[in-house]
Order: sequence, then C-alpha cells, then structure tokens
Amino acid sequence: VANNRLPGEFDLIARYFKPLAANMPGAVGLDDDVCTFAPAPGDELVFTADALVAGIHFLPHDPADLVARKMLRVNLSDLAAKGARPIGYLMATAFSPDVDEAWVASFCEGLAADQAEFGIGLMGGDTVATPGPLTLSLTAIGTVPAGRAPRRSGAKAGDVVLVSGSIGDGALGLKVLRNEFLGLDETSRRFLSNRYHLPQPRVDLGRALMLSGLVHAMMDVSDGIVADLAHIAEASHLAATLRANAVPVSEPAAAILADDMSWLPLVLTGGDDYELLLTAAPDSVPDLLGIAAELDMPLTVVGEIAAGEGVTVVDRDGAVLELASQGFRHF
Amino acid sequence: VANNRLPGEFDLIARYFKPLAANMPGAVGLDDDVCTFAPAPGDELVFTADALVAGIHFLPHDPADLVARKMLRVNLSDLAAKGARPIGYLMATAFSPDVDEAWVASFCEGLAADQAEFGIGLMGGDTVATPGPLTLSLTAIGTVPAGRAPRRSGAKAGDVVLVSGSIGDGALGLKVLRNEFLGLDETSRRFLSNRYHLPQPRVDLGRALMLSGLVHAMMDVSDGIVADLAHIAEASHLAATLRANAVPVSEPAAAILADDMSWLPLVLTGGDDYELLLTAAPDSVPDLLGIAAELDMPLTVVGEIAAGEGVTVVDRDGAVLELASQGFRHF
Repeated sequence: VANNRLPGEFDLIARYFKPLAANMPGAVGLDDDVCTFAPAPGDELVFTADALVAGIHFLPHDPADLVARKMLRVNLSDLAAKGARPIGYLMATAFSPDVDEAWVASFCEGLAADQAEFGIGLMGGDTVATPGPLTLSLTAIGTVPAGRAPRRSGAKAGDVVLVSGSIGDGALGLKVLRNEFLGLDETSRRFLSNRYHLPQPRVDLGRALMLSGLVHAMMDVSDGIVADLAHIAEASHLAATLRANAVPVSEPAAAILADDMSWLPLVLTGGDDYELLLTAAPDSVPDLLGIAAELDMPLTVVGEIAAGEGVTVVDRDGAVLELASQGFRHF
Repeated sequence: VANNRLPGEFDLIARYFKPLAANMPGAVGLDDDVCTFAPAPGDELVFTADALVAGIHFLPHDPADLVARKMLRVNLSDLAAKGARPIGYLMATAFSPDVDEAWVASFCEGLAADQAEFGIGLMGGDTVATPGPLTLSLTAIGTVPAGRAPRRSGAKAGDVVLVSGSIGDGALGLKVLRNEFLGLDETSRRFLSNRYHLPQPRVDLGRALMLSGLVHAMMDVSDGIVADLAHIAEASHLAATLRANAVPVSEPAAAILADDMSWLPLVLTGGDDYELLLTAAPDSVPDLLGIAAELDMPLTVVGEIAAGEGVTVVDRDGAVLELASQGFRHF
C-alpha cells in the first residue's frame, strides 16, 4: 500500500516521532527496537490499551491534533482512576491512503502538547500503511505504589457512590458537533463540544484519592455512568443504586435538560465523560470531599452499594427509571 | 460497524480473551481497565510494539492460529535481542466484517499455545470493529537486569559481527507459500514455509548472550540481515562489512542457492529471519560460540565493524556485491 502523500517510514519516524521520544531516555531516540523503563523502588507499573478507528471512534474530519490529544487523554483517564502517575505510551499507527503529511504533523503537534501538559513521553511504537480506515492504537503506562491501585471489584455493601466533575457533557458535545441544540448559546455549544474533544483526565484527583486509602473501588466513566457503575457492581458482586437527580451536570447540560428532560438517558448512558467514579464508606465522604475541594474539583455522592446485583436508576421521588440501553457497546 | 458473525464485545472478551489472562494476576481476569505488574528488584521493563494489517503483514487466508503465534513471536524476538525475559502483552484487535467466531477461536488457540510455550500471559487490550482489513497491534513486555539490555548503538570499531541460526528461510518460505520452488522436495518446502509462519524467537540464547556481558550491540533480524546490520552501523556511527559467503543458510536454502545464485539477494534482504545479530570483540568469539553451543544454537561470524559508515556486502573473493534494495520498507 504505497502512500505517496507521506514520506517513507524512516523519514516519517525521524521527522515526527523521534522528537516525541526526546524526553524518554529508555527510548534512545527510537533508534532501538525497544524502550526500557525502571519504576522507582516500591512502585509497580500500570498498563492500559486502546484502539481507535476513523469513522467509528472519531470523526474523519476531526482536527488531527484533537484526535491525538483525546486518544492520549482517554488512556490517561484510565491510569488516573488507578491513582497512577502517567509515564508514557507506545503507539501503533496504521495510516490510510487519505492521510497526508500535514495530518501527521498536526497529529504529532497534538501529542507534543499533551506530552508537555501531562509530563509523559513516547516510548516506542510502529508505523504501517493500511488500505482501510486510519487506525490508531496505544498502550499507556503509569506507575503506582505497589498494590495500591483501586480496582473495580473493591466496592463494599453500604458504600456510597461518588463521581467527579459533571456527567453528560461529552455525549451532548457530540450532538452539538452533529448540529443538535442549535438554539443553545455559542459559549455553551463550545463548552460541550470541547468536553467531547478534549476530556480532562483527573490525574491529580485520582492520585490524591488513591493515596487517601479511603477509596474501595474506582474507575473512569467512559461507557456512561450507568454502564460503568454496572461494571463496578458486577466486579464487586453487589448491586448499585444511582440517583438520577443527584448526578452532577454542567450549566449547559442543565439548560438542555430544563428544556427537554428526554435528554436525560443520553446524559446517563452516552459516555465519553472521563470523570472518576468511586465507592467508599459513608463516613469517608467528608474527607474525600475535602481532598477534591483542595484540587478545586467537584465530587458528588450519587448513589449507594448494597447486596444484590445490577444497577437501579431512581428518579427524584425514588421511582425506578427504565433506560433503553445501559451505554455504548462497541459492536 | 455491526459484525453479526461475532458475539458482542463483552461476550467475546469473556469467552476468548479472559482465559488468556488467567495466569496474569495483575490483569484481574480483564475485569478492570488496567493491568498492574511489578518487576523484581533490580530489573527494568522492556517494551516493544508492532502493528499488523491483513493483506500486508500476513496473508488473509493464513491460518488464524499461525497469525497469532507469528505476531507474538516477532515481538518476543525483539525482547530476546535485548536479553529480556518475556512477561506478557497487551493486544488491540480491530476485527473486519469477514472475521467470524471460528477465526477468533483459532486465533486465541494460537495465542494460548505460545503463551504456554514462552511462559507469558495477556495483560489487557481492546477489541473494536473496523470496516477495513483486520488489524492487530501488540505491545510486548519483558524484564531485564537494569541497564544491561544491549542496544543497536553499542558496536565498536574492530568488532566482529555474528548471527544465530540460518538466514533467508523466512523470505524463501514466503515464496514457497506463493508457489515458487515447486521442484523442491516436500520436506524442504515445509521447513521453509514453517520458518516463515512460525519463527523461533531466540529467548534463551539472547538472555545467555546478554548475561555474558560480552555483547556490544544486538538486535533481531527482521528487515533482512543487510538492512539490520545497517541499523547497527548507523546507530553506532560506524561501518560494517558483511561477508555473503559466511552467512549461514539452512540445507533447503543452500539447495535453492546451489541451483540458482540469483536468490542470494532475497536471502540477504528478504527479512523475516528473527535470528539474533550481534557484535563483540574478536577475542570474545570463543566464549560466545561456547554459550551458543550449550544451547544447541549455531552462531556464526559473518562480518566486521570498522570506522566509516554504511554496510558493504562482499563476495567470496572480496568483490563488493551491489544489492538493489537493502531490505523491506513498510511504505
């Protein structure tokens, strides 16, 4: 699969990828087949991997730098939910015939921007050509004190459920990009689309919560708060209740819901939130809220864990809300 | 992209991928977003990544279990060339519409077979659907005593160049699969095609060579011995000479060359060898050959390192051989 719009593989690596590995000594300028990395004594490594296909996981005409940054941030969000300090990533790119050098340049600018913002570096990867859609995959690596990463499975009966930030913005932002909510003011529209394009992995909050030792289970919200709470419930062999009216929403999302409550299922199941979802004992709540307040991050109690199985979403008056779908499934 | 030939994402993971993570405690049965891993004190981690596209890096009708095993082995070969002990891998799969459950089942059987053979486990990954060709990507992870991994860049002027096993079998094996060499006996044909499908990463030899402390530079031969020796020369800012007549070939390859020497460039540049290519001081050669002999592995001196740049391939009588291409480039 020749791609005449791109320099050859080795030139592409030299021009665009090597600079991204400059701050990663073990990658030796990508001049070797491997990257080495030694964690600090007492730390262990945390790994997560993701694959993205153009037309499925991002829009083909999304700006390349935003595609890059979202790809990194989605994975840093997984690390954040384990209290891990992000270190770097390996990236495999399969470039489609429509990808030209300007696209790669912009993509790598996006990577560079977020590498600087989150203090990470490129550790290696592979670059190939594909006749199919542009496909990106990434393994992100972080470190955490050994044995301290909160799992999905640690929830206990009697725990409360908390979530950081606001829920639903990413899913509503995608609708904005697809020309819904045209009556909304421009600032709100930009806020929501930005939340879709550029999630904020809660790295500092995740680390502080992990270090507190008060968190029983934690994960990030990517498939929607209902589906991800179901993951915690299932892994912990318990049931969860989510109080829909307690779920924190941003002002633009609140305005949309005030106008038309039928968007509520999308807020609860649309995903792309990248907030932290956790459970802890009720008497830990004041300490947890204090930790979040120090980082200027909202943290909100949204539900409870009990014996049983599954997630029940309840309304303001305690009535059970039936949702058509629990969240995004990949196929 | 619905794929009605496959179970849903969560079922696919539960049925086929979870069993592959059973021996990896930090992967907690793939029931979390991350895998954790703590190297032994004094060890560091070694990472390498690869992407494979159906129709480019493997033949669309190659048996799925062999595709899986080759994907793993190619990456274990990179780890072997750094003396690393393989630990596990993260894998991203983008399944095309033609992939059915039988394909996935066979693919995972191949993974399971090689996990058992090499003592590794699945550490995580991602499973998505793509309208394009089946695309696989993998990050392989190993451990090595900190600071001990031989790099491409360590060659010294005056070093000799050595290579393990035999060179050219993989490239000739691909020709066999494409119906060349029909005059060759069936055993030889099977030997060569097997070398293409199922390379043998030199894990034990790589580790023993690294532990000897005698290796200055080492990498595995994937792009062809000429191209990969050029990588060592370039990274080390030196020149290399390769003596074509010294390059070790298998009996079937020797038979092909005896019949028609015009296959020599393919042997030297075809790639897919996955042997170890290393440099060391001339007086280390007896010790290195002894280490290889203990593991029943051939190790052969094939050239020298000197001041200058580039690779010169010389004939039996010292005449320079011009090769049309130094090896496989991806685009």
